Amino acid sequence: MLMDSSKLAVYPGSFDPVTNGHLDILERALKIFDRIIVMIGDNPNKNPFFSPSERIDMLNEAIKKQIKVKGVVEVEYFGGLLLNFLKKKNANIIVRGLRAVSDFEFEFQRALLNRKLDSTIETVFIMTKDEYSFLNSSIVKEISRFNGSVKGLVPINVEKELKNKLNGIK
Amino acid sequence: MLMDSSKLAVYPGSFDPVTNGHLDILERALKIFDRIIVMIGDNPNKNPFFSPSERIDMLNEAIKKQIKVKGVVEVEYFGGLLLNFLKKKNANIIVRGLRAVSDFEFEFQRALLNRKLDSTIETVFIMTKDEYSFLNSSIVKEISRFNGSVKGLVPINVEKELKNKLNGIK
Amino acid sequence: MLMDSSKLAVYPGSFDPVTNGHLDILERALKIFDRIIVMIGDNPNKNPFFSPSERIDMLNEAIKKQIKVKGVVEVEYFGGLLLNFLKKKNANIIVRGLRAVSDFEFEFQRALLNRKLDSTIETVFIMTKDEYSFLNSSIVKEISRFNGSVKGLVPINVEKELKNKLNGIK
Amino acid sequence: MLMDSSKLAVYPGSFDPVTNGHLDILERALKIFDRIIVMIGDNPNKNPFFSPSERIDMLNEAIKKQIKVKGVVEVEYFGGLLLNFLKKKNANIIVRGLRAVSDFEFEFQRALLNRKLDSTIETVFIMTKDEYSFLNSSIVKEISRFNGSVKGLVPINVEKELKNKLNGIK
Amino acid sequence: MLMDSSKLAVYPGSFDPVTNGHLDILERALKIFDRIIVMIGDNPNKNPFFSPSERIDMLNEAIKKQIKVKGVVEVEYFGGLLLNFLKKKNANIIVRGLRAVSDFEFEFQRALLNRKLDSTIETVFIMTKDEYSFLNSSIVKEISRFNGSVKGLVPINVEKELKNKLNGIK
Amino acid sequence: MLMDSSKLAVYPGSFDPVTNGHLDILERALKIFDRIIVMIGDNPNKNPFFSPSERIDMLNEAIKKQIKVKGVVEVEYFGGLLLNFLKKKNANIIVRGLRAVSDFEFEFQRALLNRKLDSTIETVFIMTKDEYSFLNSSIVKEISRFNGSVKGLVPINVEKELKNKLNGIK
Repeated sequence: MLMDSSKLAVYPGSFDPVTNGHLDILERALKIFDRIIVMIGDNPNKNPFFSPSERIDMLNEAIKKQIKVKGVVEVEYFGGLLLNFLKKKNANIIVRGLRAVSDFEFEFQRALLNRKLDSTIETVFIMTKDEYSFLNSSIVKEISRFNGSVKGLVPINVEKELKNKLNGIK
Repeated sequence: MLMDSSKLAVYPGSFDPVTNGHLDILERALKIFDRIIVMIGDNPNKNPFFSPSERIDMLNEAIKKQIKVKGVVEVEYFGGLLLNFLKKKNANIIVRGLRAVSDFEFEFQRALLNRKLDSTIETVFIMTKDEYSFLNSSIVKEISRFNGSVKGLVPINVEKELKNKLNGIK
Repeated sequence: MLMDSSKLAVYPGSFDPVTNGHLDILERALKIFDRIIVMIGDNPNKNPFFSPSERIDMLNEAIKKQIKVKGVVEVEYFGGLLLNFLKKKNANIIVRGLRAVSDFEFEFQRALLNRKLDSTIETVFIMTKDEYSFLNSSIVKEISRFNGSVKGLVPINVEKELKNKLNGIK
Repeated sequence: MLMDSSKLAVYPGSFDPVTNGHLDILERALKIFDRIIVMIGDNPNKNPFFSPSERIDMLNEAIKKQIKVKGVVEVEYFGGLLLNFLKKKNANIIVRGLRAVSDFEFEFQRALLNRKLDSTIETVFIMTKDEYSFLNSSIVKEISRFNGSVKGLVPINVEKELKNKLNGIK
Repeated sequence: MLMDSSKLAVYPGSFDPVTNGHLDILERALKIFDRIIVMIGDNPNKNPFFSPSERIDMLNEAIKKQIKVKGVVEVEYFGGLLLNFLKKKNANIIVRGLRAVSDFEFEFQRALLNRKLDSTIETVFIMTKDEYSFLNSSIVKEISRFNGSVKGLVPINVEKELKNKLNGIK
Repeated sequence: MLMDSSKLAVYPGSFDPVTNGHLDILERALKIFDRIIVMIGDNPNKNPFFSPSERIDMLNEAIKKQIKVKGVVEVEYFGGLLLNFLKKKNANIIVRGLRAVSDFEFEFQRALLNRKLDSTIETVFIMTKDEYSFLNSSIVKEISRFNGSVKGLVPINVEKELKNKLNGIK
């Protein structure tokens, strides 16, 4: 029997780097979907801090260590439009996390746009755990640049990679 | 083989009466979940316009006529706490529609409360079609009371029931 | 030559009672429209504090004394749907004031609803003066009930009417 | 030496009943002010569930048991306008809690109004602990009415009082 | 007889490029104002994608082909402050579109600023058609860069210009 | 007797340049705290317009001339994380201004983050005067670049410094 592709969802983001807030959403999404593809993309207006392969590695390691819910998770980088990635993967569901009101409007605009461009696409929103409601990758990078501790905000492997990157080891 | 209960979702609301916005959410939710139980409840601070049995009948008829996506939908009235209904049904996913920003905060508070009261509960948000972003049951009742037309805003059977109710036929 | 009806606008509200915020919006709207009909309506979920005729009188007196911009202003009570009033008056523009974010969503829903019910209707929003951004009729009534001063918040004649009403003189 | 009255703040609310969110704000406010008067008031549009004396007793007991920060806290009921209470107490600072965005606009309107009515008044906002961002007295009463558990949401003594009240013991 | 300058409005923006959302607002504004000057300006923090003359041409062509409401529309580029442009044109009304909540706060700040700098200036807000609530020039450019289709989002001539620009033809 | 360090607050910002809105918040904060340290920091994603020493000088001069409330105010530049500055100063209270809704979410995220990183830290919000609700340093710089007048928006000395800077005198 073939797996019903409607139970496949894509969780897109730049994950630069992945935070515990991202992993929280991923874990919650796995209660709903059998299989999730994490699509790492790039915001065309920003230079990423970590390369695509660094981000893939960090995500894979963090998922292996921290995700306890069963379900298939794959991580891929895609340099194009989210909708093209969905087509390629034969997927029609996008998962996005909402942290309080902060990204609400941006997310809504994106979801309406995607639905307009392809009416078969559905975006499903899941709330981030309240203790991560302030958390995003930019804040993590900012704290790191000032030598602050990001313990508890990102997976342990990401903590190390941030230090290495900032110390010019990598 | 047993049906995986994680693919069962509950869609709660007062549905007083059901609108085309509700049916839109229900149809979208059926792309994600195999089985959805629509739980009709009452807001303790409001007197409902339609009785529980009237609301059940209107929903069942509207679903039969308008929902084209396959999937199992059941309609039930429950006079208690949503979380107790979920337990009774062995469900742990709540589906809620979001219309632009308007119910965002209320929905978020409810979802956080439910997660606090029972950490296994997840609330999944789906965006209403943009053309229904202004629509809710109160607006429908208000238009009806002023003899305005609610065509296109509610299922055809609900249009009739609203007229009958206001004319004292039922 | 006939007056172009497109330069006629309707400013609806419950005006229970009119505040200086309402008059501010009215004065600004008169810079844009040649003629404005203030439509006093009732919120079906609230019992008005002042009767329709009291509200008409208060508005007419306040307009006569406080509005300095030239232009035709008429005041009418209408017990039905705003859209029916617009048709009756051959008008297709609604003016509404926006006080900061506070009524934004409610106003947007209403405007979208009206546009859906009649696509020729346009709603135009004007910002209240910043010093009135907190002001509405409910707050005025609440302060009056506690014997607080509403000086500067409502026209002088309304100040008197509020006292009379609360003292049972009228 | 006289206590500097500028370090006195008033924390107003209906506290019907007091929740752990209220106590959290009170505890945080005591880090800033030497003395806080909790003013129990009534919303003129709502019938309170608990009488003023019941609310005073619940607050006093909860403060005694749960507030660990040093500082003087007094609890009083006042049936009038907040500004009159401030004058009576020779206070000019109001403390209010903000739970995410939810009460932001209402609070802002109130604070602007109070500043307009008396320019010496300042309102100071403190954020509720993130885990209480969904919590308010209405939600507590609703859960109780449906026989749900409010453990962790309200002080232990309030838990008991809610049960007694609903069972008609008091 | 002179044209009453109060019925002249200025619709400012960067129009980089014009979208169908902009044309929708323009068409609605022409129901209210006799004459509209579209002022193309530049955001000092962004490098425009199209030159001023390209933007003027695209707007003029799109207006000629798509605007069906009668009324005078002129298009001009202005490299200075909006308020100076208004003075130069003897205009005192600004028209701005509002797409759901998304630009609300930014627009409000601008409108309050302009009113503060010149109290005779009034900003009038018109709601974008709901199906364009997600649409802005940045999204259009982003989709184009990824070779996605912007059909239905921008006028047909803009579709072509975007392709040419990205292919380095122009 | 030692000054109780809990009555010391830090008011952080980039103050590039200081506006009358900042001074308004500072003056209000001095009604609550005995001593305030204004911490000038830099947003890592933006190049400041004025150097740290220029910003320090402008703030000191503006405070000397415009702040009429008694209390100790110190101005310092700090190139690191706000939390480290607080530790260095033995302070645990942050003061921030809120202008209508506009910076609400950003401020909330920051405050929650700081509380998470150090639970002894409390952020206190004070509302800006309504007439400054549109005002921030970016708007001031934008108006100046277009040769517009910023009179009434910034202290008089800042007005001059902006002109000198833009004319290349400094």
